[in-house]
Amino acid sequence: MSIVLNDLYDYEGMKIYQNEDNFKFSLDSILLAEFVDIKKDTNLIVDFCSGNAPVPLILSTKCNASFKGFEIQESIYDLGNKSIEINKLGNKIELINDNFKNVGKYLEDESVDVVTCNPPYFKYEDNSIINEDDKLAIARHEITMKLEDVMINAKYVLKNKGELYLVHRCDRLEEIVSLLNKYNFSLKKLQFIYSNMNKEAIMVLVKATKNGKTGSLKVMPPVDITKYKSYQGMFEMSD
Amino acid sequence: MSIVLNDLYDYEGMKIYQNEDNFKFSLDSILLAEFVDIKKDTNLIVDFCSGNAPVPLILSTKCNASFKGFEIQESIYDLGNKSIEINKLGNKIELINDNFKNVGKYLEDESVDVVTCNPPYFKYEDNSIINEDDKLAIARHEITMKLEDVMINAKYVLKNKGELYLVHRCDRLEEIVSLLNKYNFSLKKLQFIYSNMNKEAIMVLVKATKNGKTGSLKVMPPVDITKYKSYQGMFEMSD
Repeated sequence: MSIVLNDLYDYEGMKIYQNEDNFKFSLDSILLAEFVDIKKDTNLIVDFCSGNAPVPLILSTKCNASFKGFEIQESIYDLGNKSIEINKLGNKIELINDNFKNVGKYLEDESVDVVTCNPPYFKYEDNSIINEDDKLAIARHEITMKLEDVMINAKYVLKNKGELYLVHRCDRLEEIVSLLNKYNFSLKKLQFIYSNMNKEAIMVLVKATKNGKTGSLKVMPPVDITKYKSYQGMFEMSD
Repeated sequence: MSIVLNDLYDYEGMKIYQNEDNFKFSLDSILLAEFVDIKKDTNLIVDFCSGNAPVPLILSTKCNASFKGFEIQESIYDLGNKSIEINKLGNKIELINDNFKNVGKYLEDESVDVVTCNPPYFKYEDNSIINEDDKLAIARHEITMKLEDVMINAKYVLKNKGELYLVHRCDRLEEIVSLLNKYNFSLKKLQFIYSNMNKEAIMVLVKATKNGKTGSLKVMPPVDITKYKSYQGMFEMSD
């Protein structure tokens, strides 16, 4: 295994362990962390599908909340824990090596202010072409969870008016809106990610509020990821 | 009444009558017409809330389809007819001076390829602050129709897989998606309109297909309306 230690130099010298062979976090996680509205009274943030924990690591430089991250894959969970240790963040961030669908074992209902999630993007069917390396397959395909599980479990742990933040592919936005409404979330903020401002968006960032009022959606300025070029090579770029 | 004749110089010298006092079409109508995917086999396009008919006028320069436009306000319908006459388009575009909710009186069900609509943007409640000039009030507020009526009547007239194109305010996008799904439309294309690329989007263009398959949504490049500056003063700008 070729484990490397990268610097997230925009984030107070934060360091993050990656596995060059089979698991690097994506720019999408940085964009997701940047998209979260930081509030003074945010006490607890939970990250589903945490990977090597880039979202809690970055957000910990921006607020004083505590974090719990769920990561089902042990080797990736281990990477995250190494990063937490080297950044001396053990008092702020706790990783849990379990499927987030078991969140009820670890947290009371209605106890969390914010849920973040950069889930696997692709549906998994028997005929899906998946990566032979299981780690990547589980990170990319809905093998251990489905999109709807994010809404079900976020609804369970979030306080009334608590906030759910997601990053996903644009082609699933309609399904996301429909599932959010099914679980009584309302859409508050969208932001679209472009790798080329003259082409179609590649990703969408979504903020929704549990039991929120509909009709106040804001669509933020487009994000041109070429401005993150300095990070290229450090992690996977969406395409 | 101060009626003026403006040139839409980007569209084959198309001329359009406006009423400077109380009714000018908006840039949104040009953006809506630009957003429509033109296909060779499109025979009939119906425009709900047609106003002085900018959408059929512009689209008539781009395809050989026939058009029917519904406009409930007689004086605005008259303006549209004057434009059709001076552009010699009476053989392609027919305006109907009626509420589009009566579309069933004029057209068979499942007979139309494309529906376009630039509807009133604001909900109308008893305490709504509306413009004292009724013409503007009806064009801006949901007095004679509601958003859901667009989906109901588009579903009625459109062929299977027929296309509905809308322009609306971003804050109502969640409601639009929910209503589209209710009437078995699926979202195919979105495009967001910015008056400043560093600020929130002001409008959204929506394409949906009747009985279409979900999961193939495309989000087009952002539109920066400052590139339409040459038209300023000719019509109302959204803000």
